Amino acid sequence: MTKRIAVLPGDGIGKEVAKGTVQILEAVFECFHHDYSFEEALIGGAAIDAEGTPLPEKTLKLCLESDAVLLGAVGGPKWDQNPPELRPEKGLLGLRKALGLFANLRPVTTYPTLLHASPLKKEVVENVDLLIVRELTGGIYFGSPSGRRGNQKEVAVDTLEYSVSEIERIVDKAFQFARNRRKKLTSVDKANVLESSRMWREIVNKMAKNYPDVQVEHMLVDSAAMQLIARPNQFDVIVTENMFGDILSDEASMITGSLGMLPSASLRSDHVGLYEPVHGSAPDIAGQDKANPLGMILSAAMLLRYSFQLEKEASILEEAVGKVLKAGYYTDDLRVQDGKRVGTKEMIEKVLDAI
Amino acid sequence: MTKRIAVLPGDGIGKEVAKGTVQILEAVFECFHHDYSFEEALIGGAAIDAEGTPLPEKTLKLCLESDAVLLGAVGGPKWDQNPPELRPEKGLLGLRKALGLFANLRPVTTYPTLLHASPLKKEVVENVDLLIVRELTGGIYFGSPSGRRGNQKEVAVDTLEYSVSEIERIVDKAFQFARNRRKKLTSVDKANVLESSRMWREIVNKMAKNYPDVQVEHMLVDSAAMQLIARPNQFDVIVTENMFGDILSDEASMITGSLGMLPSASLRSDHVGLYEPVHGSAPDIAGQDKANPLGMILSAAMLLRYSFQLEKEASILEEAVGKVLKAGYYTDDLRVQDGKRVGTKEMIEKVLDAI
Ligand SMILES: CC(C)[C@H](C(=O)O)[C@@H](O)C(=O)O
Ligand SMILES: CC(C)[C@H](C(=O)O)[C@@H](O)C(=O)O
Repeated sequence: MTKRIAVLPGDGIGKEVAKGTVQILEAVFECFHHDYSFEEALIGGAAIDAEGTPLPEKTLKLCLESDAVLLGAVGGPKWDQNPPELRPEKGLLGLRKALGLFANLRPVTTYPTLLHASPLKKEVVENVDLLIVRELTGGIYFGSPSGRRGNQKEVAVDTLEYSVSEIERIVDKAFQFARNRRKKLTSVDKANVLESSRMWREIVNKMAKNYPDVQVEHMLVDSAAMQLIARPNQFDVIVTENMFGDILSDEASMITGSLGMLPSASLRSDHVGLYEPVHGSAPDIAGQDKANPLGMILSAAMLLRYSFQLEKEASILEEAVGKVLKAGYYTDDLRVQDGKRVGTKEMIEKVLDAI
Repeated sequence: MTKRIAVLPGDGIGKEVAKGTVQILEAVFECFHHDYSFEEALIGGAAIDAEGTPLPEKTLKLCLESDAVLLGAVGGPKWDQNPPELRPEKGLLGLRKALGLFANLRPVTTYPTLLHASPLKKEVVENVDLLIVRELTGGIYFGSPSGRRGNQKEVAVDTLEYSVSEIERIVDKAFQFARNRRKKLTSVDKANVLESSRMWREIVNKMAKNYPDVQVEHMLVDSAAMQLIARPNQFDVIVTENMFGDILSDEASMITGSLGMLPSASLRSDHVGLYEPVHGSAPDIAGQDKANPLGMILSAAMLLRYSFQLEKEASILEEAVGKVLKAGYYTDDLRVQDGKRVGTKEMIEKVLDAI
């Protein structure tokens, strides 16, 4: 049976990087005689403009029927003044929730040729290989009430809410990843202030008994924000709730020097997943053939690995990216000193050549 | 009339650094023939052990009757398993709230001799001079409900809550600081997800009209976590809500290379304030004469400036710290390569000498 991949380019540079990434996936599938189909749909600002909603019915339907979703990026100043329900981000949040993608994986690894691109010292970022496992469908992103109250609507409220089962399933995923890596799990919370964090910590401690081979530590989020740049290579797997994961993973991107390099996968218990680069739609450079497509290409490698169990194909893609970087090619964001500066399209061609 | 300073050493290294800092303040007052009194009281774990509560009545009474509070640090593994109400942090949070100290100032500046101590590159941290203005008595730290619900208590809830007036007063403070500095204000929120952030942003935009001389920008918290290490010297004043301020200010401490260097002031509308180093109680090095007292000494300088308008005296203290560092003295945390390593007590003596 043909496997279906939904492609949602979204806004800004999302469109540019999605296009090239589909080409690359097609090339891989052809090489290996795999049978896959790609179907495109609108999301975010593009969907608001065309359909009046950030997550149109037919986009959602397509994604629900697909085996994997490849997403570019959403958002832009054009829609920043829109009411909450008509914001591009709402489409992405709605999709994550509708597909039940509770586990967001954000690996951070450094490439030898890019070490100098980091604002951190070479000796600090060398050999970093960490994985942030962020809870993605709960917490303050989705808790209710979230709104205004009082006679004059003078109080704004958001609700951070987690059930035991929501925490258990993400913590279990994180333990599994840790078991298959260097067997160290850092759970990040704010247990000295938040009740949800205290429950989180209890559950981590309870589940640790099922993973005696994994070393567990707890770290407060403020301390983690510090340690992540002080000594990033102390970390193997980091597990945390939605909002802390949002903040820490963007911070961690600076270890590699560019957000443009980082992939992500959003998973649930079966093989369905959504794959998107960590970077946003970057309206400032959109349409100028300047965007770094590597974060999206590495996301496609995660798609091959997690949704289709094509480990060999995933590695080929990752190695191709490594080769292109080693050959000195770089996009603007990577601030390489003496390499060959290329645009989005040329970078994609270089990766195609390297496959 | 004699001005009263309440001294709350707290736990761990808090005791060591508070003691020396009082000596230094006494020396300054003597020099300038000012009339001040110091009274000590318990808080945090020390108060739990002695009185069964992290914020005893008499401590609170003393603080309410004082003109300024000097605090060391609270917390330690000994009390980590205590129920929420009997945690050391609860004493600190209760005191901030009881005194109405809504504005937490955390300046981050770099010292030429300490640049190499940062995990960030020299050229990234050079000339950084930023001020984080963190809201301190609202948000998810104090919102209700905060607890467990459901038949099996299987859902944990925390509430992020802000009223218009709570936001207005902190934003106004931040604008005033920006006006007296480099006239740039960065407001950090998560307006693409949180209702409280959208209200925050509206209020900042409205109040900006009263400060036409100040340049205002909005930044999402995930992006701010990144920018703070990518290009910290783009910032002048950063204003944000309680939890974001907690995370970002600890992160920002890495710009200086050591949490041990950073002071803080917690203020309200009159001159009463609480002054404490940003670092914690550091149980691992407590009682070993290893703690860096400079964060606390610089907090005392802020006390002189903000509670007593003793600008000259505050500067003398700050310059003394600068001189001692320039002379090559350093505590363990500062990882100086070729300087003179000293303990807490000796560092305090060096500062006394420099005054
Ligand atoms: C666009 C936004 C809602 C989103 C988030 O906060 O989850 C983004 O920052 C991310 O990290 O994927
Ligand atoms: C001890 C803790 C409750 C406190 C906070 O989160 O406010 C501390 O981290 C701080 O930043 O002063």
